[in-house]
Amino acid sequence: MASRETTVSDGSNQPEAPPPPPAVEPSKYSKTTALKSILNRDDKGLGLVGRRVVVGGWVNSRKERAESDAPSQLPPPRAAAQDVSCYDVLMQRVPFLRPIARILVGVIGAQPEKPAASPAKDGPFTVYLRINDGSCSSNLQVVLDSSMSLPGQVITVGTSILAQGVLQKILAPKKHVVELMVEKILHVGVVDVKSYPLTKPRISLVSLRDHPHLRPRSIAVTQSNSLALFQIGSVTRICSNLIYTGHEFFHKKGFIHVHTPIITSMNAGNHGKMFQVTTLLSNSGGKDKSAAVHEHEGVDLEAFRAAIREKSKRIDELRRSDSNKEALSAAELDLQRSKELVLMLEKQQQSTAPSAGELDFSNDFFSRPVYLSASAGLHLESYACALSSVYTIGPVFQTDESKSAEKLAEMWMIEAELAFTELQDVMNCAEDLVQSLCYSLMETAGNDLKCVSKQIEKNCIKRLKSIVSGSFARITYSEALNILNQVKDKSFLSKVGWGNTLSEEQESYLADEFYKRPVIVYEYPKEVKPFYVRVSDNGRTVSAFDIIAPKVGVMVRGSQKEERMDVIVKRIQELGLPHEQYEWYIDLRKHGSVKHSGFSLDIEKMVMTATGLADVKDAVPFPRVRGHAKL
Amino acid sequence: MASRETTVSDGSNQPEAPPPPPAVEPSKYSKTTALKSILNRDDKGLGLVGRRVVVGGWVNSRKERAESDAPSQLPPPRAAAQDVSCYDVLMQRVPFLRPIARILVGVIGAQPEKPAASPAKDGPFTVYLRINDGSCSSNLQVVLDSSMSLPGQVITVGTSILAQGVLQKILAPKKHVVELMVEKILHVGVVDVKSYPLTKPRISLVSLRDHPHLRPRSIAVTQSNSLALFQIGSVTRICSNLIYTGHEFFHKKGFIHVHTPIITSMNAGNHGKMFQVTTLLSNSGGKDKSAAVHEHEGVDLEAFRAAIREKSKRIDELRRSDSNKEALSAAELDLQRSKELVLMLEKQQQSTAPSAGELDFSNDFFSRPVYLSASAGLHLESYACALSSVYTIGPVFQTDESKSAEKLAEMWMIEAELAFTELQDVMNCAEDLVQSLCYSLMETAGNDLKCVSKQIEKNCIKRLKSIVSGSFARITYSEALNILNQVKDKSFLSKVGWGNTLSEEQESYLADEFYKRPVIVYEYPKEVKPFYVRVSDNGRTVSAFDIIAPKVGVMVRGSQKEERMDVIVKRIQELGLPHEQYEWYIDLRKHGSVKHSGFSLDIEKMVMTATGLADVKDAVPFPRVRGHAKL
Repeated sequence: MASRETTVSDGSNQPEAPPPPPAVEPSKYSKTTALKSILNRDDKGLGLVGRRVVVGGWVNSRKERAESDAPSQLPPPRAAAQDVSCYDVLMQRVPFLRPIARILVGVIGAQPEKPAASPAKDGPFTVYLRINDGSCSSNLQVVLDSSMSLPGQVITVGTSILAQGVLQKILAPKKHVVELMVEKILHVGVVDVKSYPLTKPRISLVSLRDHPHLRPRSIAVTQSNSLALFQIGSVTRICSNLIYTGHEFFHKKGFIHVHTPIITSMNAGNHGKMFQVTTLLSNSGGKDKSAAVHEHEGVDLEAFRAAIREKSKRIDELRRSDSNKEALSAAELDLQRSKELVLMLEKQQQSTAPSAGELDFSNDFFSRPVYLSASAGLHLESYACALSSVYTIGPVFQTDESKSAEKLAEMWMIEAELAFTELQDVMNCAEDLVQSLCYSLMETAGNDLKCVSKQIEKNCIKRLKSIVSGSFARITYSEALNILNQVKDKSFLSKVGWGNTLSEEQESYLADEFYKRPVIVYEYPKEVKPFYVRVSDNGRTVSAFDIIAPKVGVMVRGSQKEERMDVIVKRIQELGLPHEQYEWYIDLRKHGSVKHSGFSLDIEKMVMTATGLADVKDAVPFPRVRGHAKL
Repeated sequence: MASRETTVSDGSNQPEAPPPPPAVEPSKYSKTTALKSILNRDDKGLGLVGRRVVVGGWVNSRKERAESDAPSQLPPPRAAAQDVSCYDVLMQRVPFLRPIARILVGVIGAQPEKPAASPAKDGPFTVYLRINDGSCSSNLQVVLDSSMSLPGQVITVGTSILAQGVLQKILAPKKHVVELMVEKILHVGVVDVKSYPLTKPRISLVSLRDHPHLRPRSIAVTQSNSLALFQIGSVTRICSNLIYTGHEFFHKKGFIHVHTPIITSMNAGNHGKMFQVTTLLSNSGGKDKSAAVHEHEGVDLEAFRAAIREKSKRIDELRRSDSNKEALSAAELDLQRSKELVLMLEKQQQSTAPSAGELDFSNDFFSRPVYLSASAGLHLESYACALSSVYTIGPVFQTDESKSAEKLAEMWMIEAELAFTELQDVMNCAEDLVQSLCYSLMETAGNDLKCVSKQIEKNCIKRLKSIVSGSFARITYSEALNILNQVKDKSFLSKVGWGNTLSEEQESYLADEFYKRPVIVYEYPKEVKPFYVRVSDNGRTVSAFDIIAPKVGVMVRGSQKEERMDVIVKRIQELGLPHEQYEWYIDLRKHGSVKHSGFSLDIEKMVMTATGLADVKDAVPFPRVRGHAKL
């Protein structure tokens, strides 16, 4: 409950003190009221005017105004604050004589909207902070008297503040209609300005990537437009909304969530090289490895090379001296062995990695080699073939074979598997899911969408609307080829022809240019899809589908799975996959097999669709890409 | 839409055929109707009698009955089927003469409840199947005529069946009141009886662990009581319910879900040895490693040893012959080097692992050593210090230092972090979460709870009730010691004394015996909790808490985090942690620090609380424990 204590009270007895304003219900687990529950009300908080609240947040901007009037018991209504650039203030302010130290200025990089006005040099002044607590994209204006903060409490951008006050109407409202008139500052968490990496409140997306731990606090500037600002928090809130909607979608339809494993012994080359998980390598968490490296390099290879040179000389001598043939051949054998040894040692030292053969995985934690799962699909199948409709939402892992740093090594996926279904069923399910996700964002993340739509890409909301407005186009791979073959006004870098995968450029043409909405391409040639996809009766195509979305490309991959045991065994043989790894998978066909189908949706692509972000590294909190795994 | 075709039609013209029964709405993405939507209705499906449905599922048991009556247009109402043991049937049945092959019998391991009755030797017979589709714990009785299935379709336990039929009332209802009279079998997925590992429909929990891919289909027998059966599916449905409720709990309270990373470069020894993630070891997905091992072993160490023996002899000769001293010392040097080399090679071959020094992590995928995250906590903090209330639900990883196989290496956790909170706030939040999870199970997973409560442990529902019935006990660590010190009737294996962690036995005493409900222990000695927990004003204790639950022990660990920069830096130094790894973490205190607190809840412990399962390996679909990572 909010305290009745006020800082402006000077102890004078007022015969008829007004009753304290009723407090706003705080968050359940904190004394603070989330800004969302003030600013995101239909009335933008107007109905709460006069109520006492405690709010906490981080300062996004700061302005100040001279205050020559003596402070009245209730602060006077005021016009919107005048903007003061920090530089001006720093240059002009003289030290305070009041016992409480003055509040220093924030470092504001953006240009002030109005000409700067200097506060009176010796009077108290009023500080206008815009704070954000991450509960929504809106900031609350917090008004306080310069006398309120404690010595050393320098309120700059990035500072945290916890304050109690009364909500009041802004006299000249623009976007916001209420502000907080602070009665008491409960806590200030200062910023070490000289080391704070985000001294400018507005920083480019690219620079922000160096500070993933501070990134969510910041207002970012998009790469393309230096004036376009948005809160990184919006991206996280949008992603959070997608996760919840995903769970809700499946839960309401009776799907069962299954914890598919991250660590797997399956490594069938389906997904290229996989991340290996081991406890064999390091026992020394966090210790510097360089000492160990030097120790190993200490094997005196050069001494052996010198010995070989000597041995060679000696053999030459032996040959010239035409001496004992046995001694010569023994020396030659010895030399040969030494050369082999040195060669081997050189090889080992050059080798950046021990070959798999050097590790005895029977001593590893799981007594075998294990990997990070590249897909929950196979494991989900085993549960679908028992519980019918199952799904999972979690991370999968891929090593990007190309050197491109654009693919995430750790991605979050929504994966589902449905028994007693065929291709069309699961295409319907995937389409419904994509539409539900977009619809839910439009319904419940409106402010964040407006924020990114204004500031990252104008088309965001339009694109979401187009996704939910009607059915996706559905064409077979053959029909896709026909469309691509009829394109006259551009030529694709990759050849359009049966048996080739569609290139990103071709996919983009279909979704962005031809249909201008998501398109489902299905019935692919057998060769371009994995072994587990059901072979069609024609023997050439398989029951796979992709949902290709405008801007982001393939967002969903799915298929009807091959339920016929003889066919799956043949496919595994054809592709040279290790049969023994798939015995359990074949079991699902050997015993009580049913038709079943599934798909996986790339959550990061949904985030990029919704936000318009161009780089996936800005769409996830801690991106893991080749060469980078910060924190 | 269900087809009007029926298999029993014999083409006779019926002048006033009754209109076809209205079909039950199928699942949205399948032609089948989930059994849940028939059997879990308040009327147990009675209101659907006469309706046509398609159902799919796997056979849990099979019985049959002789049918001497000619089949009528509508099958006659029948009493509960008589049980027939497969063995009896196999021994007694003679081959059919009807054009359609007879349905062979299932292999039923359990004793029939009634004496077996043989169907007529040459007539058609009626088959009673109990099928389950995983949507709920209930089975549907499916009644079909032996003439319906195709040649080779042997319907045994584990067989999948997809059938269309009409729901009818069971004349002598017990647990169930409706059954399906089959009109048409749409699909049968047979079982290869000789290789099916679950030939008995009822199998022990321990045996089931060998078949994680088939386990969810099975009816298990608990270890303690050979007559106690339950569907493994119940455990998965209960876990799924927990996951959804967890998301719902936080979503409704405005928490933001954050994708904390699985792959992390943080390895500070907080969590003991961590799993390392690398692409340096294997390039050959799925290939047999034994070839590589042999190749390496092919380095002919024995030849080198022989050479050393020869060299030694030669040196002896040289010494005896008292010849050229230079030649002798050269030979001696050569011998010494050879010995060193062989020693080194031996060492390498013995070594099960290359030391970390042998790997150049600059060539690894992330250009540095990375690990599987043992906790989302630190990363969540960085988002809480920007977005206030955040959470994540996902896997964390631990290598169990003890050889015990009882700890999961891959666990699912619910982790939350709240800014502007102190210890009591987050204790409230964690308690509410635990109660919400239990309450939701009681509300929505009633049938599954009844199932496990009858069949795994009687106390399950009682325990859940006791958890939701009131506040948890809250005691400080000191108070816990006082309670433990006053125990007279038993002696603990571990010493009770300040500065010792509470042993599992002591924790169990507090929750199971003393309070008989969950107890929150807080304010632990500084020494037994991690560096990031806030140091109390007394300097001896820290603001940590554990929720200890009956039966499962510590279910939640939480704490108020140290928000004071000077203190956290000192703690990191005191504990000898690598400062450079924590620079980002210290940044959160250096810039805009706020009081914040968090906790993590072990989902598997919740599953064990709810199900009464004794072994965590039965509580998760694909358990990963030391030495085992199946599939």
